Parts: sequence; structure tokens; C-alpha cells
Amino acid sequence: MSLLVTGSIGIDTVTTPYGVSENCAGGSAVYFSMAASYFSPVRFIGVIGADCPFDIAEVFAGRDVDLRGLEVRELSKTFRWKGSYHDTMNEAITDNVELNVLAEVPPEVPEVFTDSQFVFLANTNPALQHKLLDQISNPTFVAADTMNCWIQGYLNELKALLKRIDCIIINEDEAKMLANQRNLIKAVELIQQMGPRVTIIKRGDAGSLMFEANGDMFSLPAFPTADVKDPTGAGDSFAGALMGYLANAGNADFNTLKTALGYGTVAASFTIENFSLLGISSATRADIDKRFETLKKLTQF
Amino acid sequence: MSLLVTGSIGIDTVTTPYGVSENCAGGSAVYFSMAASYFSPVRFIGVIGADCPFDIAEVFAGRDVDLRGLEVRELSKTFRWKGSYHDTMNEAITDNVELNVLAEVPPEVPEVFTDSQFVFLANTNPALQHKLLDQISNPTFVAADTMNCWIQGYLNELKALLKRIDCIIINEDEAKMLANQRNLIKAVELIQQMGPRVTIIKRGDAGSLMFEANGDMFSLPAFPTADVKDPTGAGDSFAGALMGYLANAGNADFNTLKTALGYGTVAASFTIENFSLLGISSATRADIDKRFETLKKLTQF
Repeated sequence: MSLLVTGSIGIDTVTTPYGVSENCAGGSAVYFSMAASYFSPVRFIGVIGADCPFDIAEVFAGRDVDLRGLEVRELSKTFRWKGSYHDTMNEAITDNVELNVLAEVPPEVPEVFTDSQFVFLANTNPALQHKLLDQISNPTFVAADTMNCWIQGYLNELKALLKRIDCIIINEDEAKMLANQRNLIKAVELIQQMGPRVTIIKRGDAGSLMFEANGDMFSLPAFPTADVKDPTGAGDSFAGALMGYLANAGNADFNTLKTALGYGTVAASFTIENFSLLGISSATRADIDKRFETLKKLTQF
Repeated sequence: MSLLVTGSIGIDTVTTPYGVSENCAGGSAVYFSMAASYFSPVRFIGVIGADCPFDIAEVFAGRDVDLRGLEVRELSKTFRWKGSYHDTMNEAITDNVELNVLAEVPPEVPEVFTDSQFVFLANTNPALQHKLLDQISNPTFVAADTMNCWIQGYLNELKALLKRIDCIIINEDEAKMLANQRNLIKAVELIQQMGPRVTIIKRGDAGSLMFEANGDMFSLPAFPTADVKDPTGAGDSFAGALMGYLANAGNADFNTLKTALGYGTVAASFTIENFSLLGISSATRADIDKRFETLKKLTQF
């Protein structure tokens, strides 16, 4: 089934203990689509300005990513993010952010994309997530991400969004903030009451947890990786492989979601092993499947 | 097979966001033995002073814990620990510690215990761990715990100990400190080179990881618990159930270790649900087995 993503395209400058990556391709929709493309064709929606130093078509060359939803605004500037990671690299420090086109009106969903079945609303203002979702006629499974600034500033819009979607994919700290609860399991119970059938908690190197409204739970560790160079995009790659797997399977029942979470975990592990998109984009599908089997073995007893 | 533990007996005063527990039973050997006793008879070695406000025999009443290794020093004072947990309760803050008997000579291993097959050297000065291990004639499987102060102050003794034991059970931060490596997987590789066949990393609410010298790995999440009242003793309960299961099984091959890690995870989850020993001691074996099955389901796909 068709998979659509809306999210950011960013010009990233990232500093980690392993080096600096300047003005490279980033953004939630880009990482998401790169990971998802291993599993399913992707319909891509995003906006850049005239200043974008990389060619999005080239970034996705040879992959089934439909860029008819890519909008180039000649008078605007591309979203820029400058961040750094220190010590254990568990936390991104935002050194500078220029919203630029992300502060403007959202992109239009092309008519040919409005019948999309699987939809991922990557992290942005919940008001924009609503407007984008309004344009999809009858989706099968909608997932969304969010972050601290929207929880703090747009809580009502976010809560209204949670009633419209099937799945929230969110960081542990943000889940606790959203529910105003320091215990993660209690926080999840409160988030479930806000609406989504599936709640997925991203915990960085502590792996992930998944909860279904009927009480089912599932948990995976992060894939053990000795070479972590740049964690940027790990969460979006995780969501991309997860949603790509679901779209390809054509359903989102809990057993399918478990396998999807496994592929998300593996995609994130490739992303963090190199700067920008180098880690995930240089993996082959065989590499991904091999690591998936290792992950499965790692957790079975 | 027989299981022996040497470690601390403590008078604990613990403050968490849920309340205060004053002068209650604690210490590594006590938590360990309580959890282990669900799986195997336990041979207990530890020392208290004349001031101990609780009766150890009463603490273990109805359980198969052999206290012939309990030494009461009439002129000494019992080890005391005063600690607190804040916010997410992931970290214990030591507010006060009085080593008392722990700063004296170690206890003797009774003659009847010297043939013990499974041995756990709970956290103490590595020089004492050596002396205790010297008294065991021909153990099958020896595991030890340690902590930051010994890594910093007694690194040579600790490294010598690692060559004598089969398994190290250690917190993530301490593993990184021991290996002087900020990446956990690289830290484990270095610890493996120090000697033990099995390295088990405790990660609090992020679960645990286990590594075998032949390259095998295994990982479990923490058991999802909505009611965390007092994390004290979680690590020792974890080790207790793990070693108790192994001693009962009579071997420590990797498949047996996987199941043992599952029981350790479950024991820790009961311990943290109430103050002092109340959480673990009020569980039945049926409660433990039920949670074990849930944990297994939580991670299978």
C-alpha cells in the first residue's frame, strides 16, 4: 500500500566527538524516506528554498521516492539546523536553528497523493500536521511524531491530533512531558487515553517500547553498535523503516508492528554509524536483513 | 548445586518521592539472598555489629537461607547507608555511609560452605573478594559485582579478580569507567579481554545486556513497572534470582543464562515496587513465574 511522509528537509551542520559535517542533507522527511525506501515506495512532501546546496533528486537517486510533493520556493530559505553531541551522544544540543520555510504555509498534498494509505506526519507544528492530514482522503494508518516545543506551546492542537491518528512515535522524555508524568508506564497509559491505538516510545540507546490500546506490549533493545558517529536522524530512520515495512505488509496489526519495530531499530543503527545520510544510505537490503536476524536472536529465549 | 553469597548487610535509610524508610534491612547479600531463595537454597556470609535493629533469621524466616556464615561482632557496628532518589529515580544519591564492620577483616567462610559450586561475590573491596574466593575449594561458576570506588581506587586488585571469575555483573556507567570507554559495546569488548567469560551490564530502567566471550549477545528490557517506589536492591535482587536460577539448573551455558537473566529482571521489578525488602519478599513464586511469562511475550517476535 502507498506510504506518504510530510516533514522537514534540512541543511544540517552537526558536530560530534568524531568530527563535523557541514551543510549536509538532513531533516525528518529525508531520513524517514531514505529508510522507508528499503521497504516500500515513498511519496515525499516537503519544502525547500532556493538556497538548498544539495539536490534532493540526487539524494534519492535509484530509490523509489516520488518527489512530486517537493516544493521549491524561490524566494524562501531552506530550514537549517546546527547541532552537537557530546560525551555519550545521547542528547542533541541545538546550537542554532533557522525555521525559514518551515515557518511559512505548509506544502500542498498533490492530488495524486491524496489517496495514500499509510501516512507519517513527521515532527512539526501540530496545526500544520492537522492541515496536511485534512488533505488525505481515507488513510488506513496514520502515525505522527512530535517534540517538546509543540507539547509546551500547542498542547490543545496536539491533543486534537492524537484523536485523529492511529499511532504516536515519541521520545521517552517527550512522552513524560506530554502526560506530565515521571513514570514512563503511567505516562503511556495517559497518552493512550488521548486517543492513539499504538504508542511507540523511542529511548535512544535503551531501545524502544510499544503499547497497543488492548494492553499488548512489546519491547526491543537498541541494536548494539560499537561505532556511533552521529545520532542525527536515528528517530526518523526508525519511523521510516517501521512505516515502510507496514506499508509493504499492507496492515498494522500488532504482530506486523513487532517486526516493523525490529526493522526500525536496525535502520536507526545504520544511521548513527556515520554522518548525515551516509550510514543508512550505504547499507544494502541484505545488510539490513542480516542485522534484523541478529537483533531477533539477541532477544529470543 | 550449592549457591554461596558474600556481601553486605546494611541498615538502610532511604528517601524517595514516595516516602522514607528508616533503619530497615538492606545490603547486597540480603537482597541477593531474598531473590535467590525463590530458586535455590542459599549459603549466606556476612557480618553485623551488636547494633543491628532487625533479626536476620527473622528476615529469612521460612526460606532456605543457611545463616551459618552470619557473623555477629559484639564490639562492632553494622554497616549503614543513607540514600535518596529524586525525579525519575534512576540514580541513588548517597547521603551518608558508615562502613563500620565492612572496614574490618572479612568474615570467614565456614568449612561446610567451602565446597560451594555457584558463588556470588557482591560488591565490596576487591581485596576482600579475593580473600573470600580463596576459601572456596573448587567452584563451578563465580560471579562478582563491583562499583566506582573500587574501580578508581583498587583497579589492579579488581583486574586480578576478573581473571579469576566467570562472570562480572556491573552497571553500565561502571563498565564504561572500568574500560575507560564511553561506548558501551567497546567497553564490553575491553572488559572481556580482562578475563570473564560472561559480562552482564545492568542498565536500570533500560534493561540489561549480556555478552559471552564467544561473541554471543543477549538483551532484555526492564520489566515495565508503573509503581516504582524504591530502586534500592534492584541490582542485587537481579543477581540473586539470576544466580539462584543457575545454581538450581546446575549449569551456566548461554541458554540457561538467558532464562536466568529473565528471572533476574523479574526479581528486580518486584524489589523496586516497594520499600526495602517488602516488594521482593511479598511476591510468590507464582507471581514471579507469571511476570516471567509476560516478559518473555514482551520480547518475542
